[in-house]
Amino acid sequence: MAIVGAQMVKRKPKQTARRPSRPDGSPEPGRRRRPRRPAGAPGGAPGGGELWLYGSHAVLAALANPRRRIRRLLITDEAAKRLEQPLAELKAGRDAALPAARAAAHDLAQVLPEGAVHQGLALQVAPLDQPDLDAVIAAAGPRPERPAVVLALDQVTDPQNVGAILRSACAFGVAAVLTTERRAAVESGALVKAASGAFEHLPYVQETNLARSLDRLREADYLAIGLAAEAEMPIYAVARPARLVLVLGAEGAGLRRLTRERCDLLVRLPTQGPIDHLNVSNAAAVSLYELLGTGSRTE
Amino acid sequence: MAIVGAQMVKRKPKQTARRPSRPDGSPEPGRRRRPRRPAGAPGGAPGGGELWLYGSHAVLAALANPRRRIRRLLITDEAAKRLEQPLAELKAGRDAALPAARAAAHDLAQVLPEGAVHQGLALQVAPLDQPDLDAVIAAAGPRPERPAVVLALDQVTDPQNVGAILRSACAFGVAAVLTTERRAAVESGALVKAASGAFEHLPYVQETNLARSLDRLREADYLAIGLAAEAEMPIYAVARPARLVLVLGAEGAGLRRLTRERCDLLVRLPTQGPIDHLNVSNAAAVSLYELLGTGSRTE
Repeated sequence: MAIVGAQMVKRKPKQTARRPSRPDGSPEPGRRRRPRRPAGAPGGAPGGGELWLYGSHAVLAALANPRRRIRRLLITDEAAKRLEQPLAELKAGRDAALPAARAAAHDLAQVLPEGAVHQGLALQVAPLDQPDLDAVIAAAGPRPERPAVVLALDQVTDPQNVGAILRSACAFGVAAVLTTERRAAVESGALVKAASGAFEHLPYVQETNLARSLDRLREADYLAIGLAAEAEMPIYAVARPARLVLVLGAEGAGLRRLTRERCDLLVRLPTQGPIDHLNVSNAAAVSLYELLGTGSRTE
Repeated sequence: MAIVGAQMVKRKPKQTARRPSRPDGSPEPGRRRRPRRPAGAPGGAPGGGELWLYGSHAVLAALANPRRRIRRLLITDEAAKRLEQPLAELKAGRDAALPAARAAAHDLAQVLPEGAVHQGLALQVAPLDQPDLDAVIAAAGPRPERPAVVLALDQVTDPQNVGAILRSACAFGVAAVLTTERRAAVESGALVKAASGAFEHLPYVQETNLARSLDRLREADYLAIGLAAEAEMPIYAVARPARLVLVLGAEGAGLRRLTRERCDLLVRLPTQGPIDHLNVSNAAAVSLYELLGTGSRTE
């Protein structure tokens, strides 16, 4: 790949590079040593465990995340000019130099999935280490005025939808998003782009056995609420507990039996007319708004 | 293209075919004679004015729509078996025979955009005739217990997002979705697939001048409410008028100045934390839920 421009950095990315040292040198409690492997996802890197992020919001948020291990940034002249200010601030805030290289748009296209809307930035990174469920529970709260809400996705696979869900979840103050290990969207350029920065702020935790994870949350006093089109109770009728986990299934398939059996109650969105199923990310946003976004209304 | 199977229909689709006659032979009031032209959209047919729809929900809903002019259905053996029941009911309800042909998956792939998730169905159709704004206003209501809500999209271009918006708009009882003529998503296979049937139920009206359309709605006693991240008023604080038009801009760009100036008030979604912008379809769903979906809560 041809890299052009005076800022070219030839440092070869190391597969074994450690994350930049934390200010106090302490290990991060509750975070897994072994990052999840994005296997075979577009924008992911099967085998190597590295992936390319792209898009302004996604890349700037990753660069600003001290937990994100950066390999190298490819940036077009146009993007470097457009983002001069935020990039200068990011560089000033970093301990180590940013391995950045000017590149032409077609260089970016070579490392990214076809049709990726990169906006002139491509960032090679290691997948984020994610906390385990116990750490999520310990960190979740509840906070004084709002419930602690965890979102669980039961085999939701589309990276655009999951990215949009992470974005809404972050905007409405969700503590973490749990997902399945099989038939799930893994960290990828497309997912992180759709999350528009939210992936750096919100734990996205793949669970081997989601039913068991729901058991664990219920032991920790979480009310498990499943969204199901055939439920009788509308979501606005739920009395708000201090801790809840909202469980969403894939479009079409819905919640699996073992997942559904773990739910303390099933609720529906109050739809009408010929269409009663929303896009899964729309359903997630509406549900989270009802459970978290309207807190001020009742004050 | 090789078509296999005993049900092959050789009728050549006519560019000039008229829509099937209506039961009472009357012209449809307020509907444009000239369908919008999906120019250059994937799955659309620039020039010919025809397009290919795909996906189970989208195709079944189009077949069930008496206003939809059907050219021909390509269907795989697997899909014909899986959908035997609904297809039989659709055929029984039609005046004319359904021009359907069995096809292999690779035949469908040839007429559809690359990567289209067709689920074994591809349907060639004419674009829907859409009502004009006066017809929308006349039909919108308000209904006794809910406001009349029109949604206006100011240069929202992504067909997946617009399709999801149409789906949520239909589910929450919106009267019509207005969009711009330039920089907008036109009717296409991808949009209709993402709308998951909703495109057949909800007017999607391209307006030459959206600011003027908002003027027209305000003359008809619609309150124009714009969504803007920097607004001070949260959306739940809006007193619900009998008629309102909710105006959403594109992600990043937001509402254009001339559009914004037509809004009677600007509201924001009550987000928190580092992410304050939702995906546009998520923002639309949450806003429509707040304005329309929670009617029963206040009963």
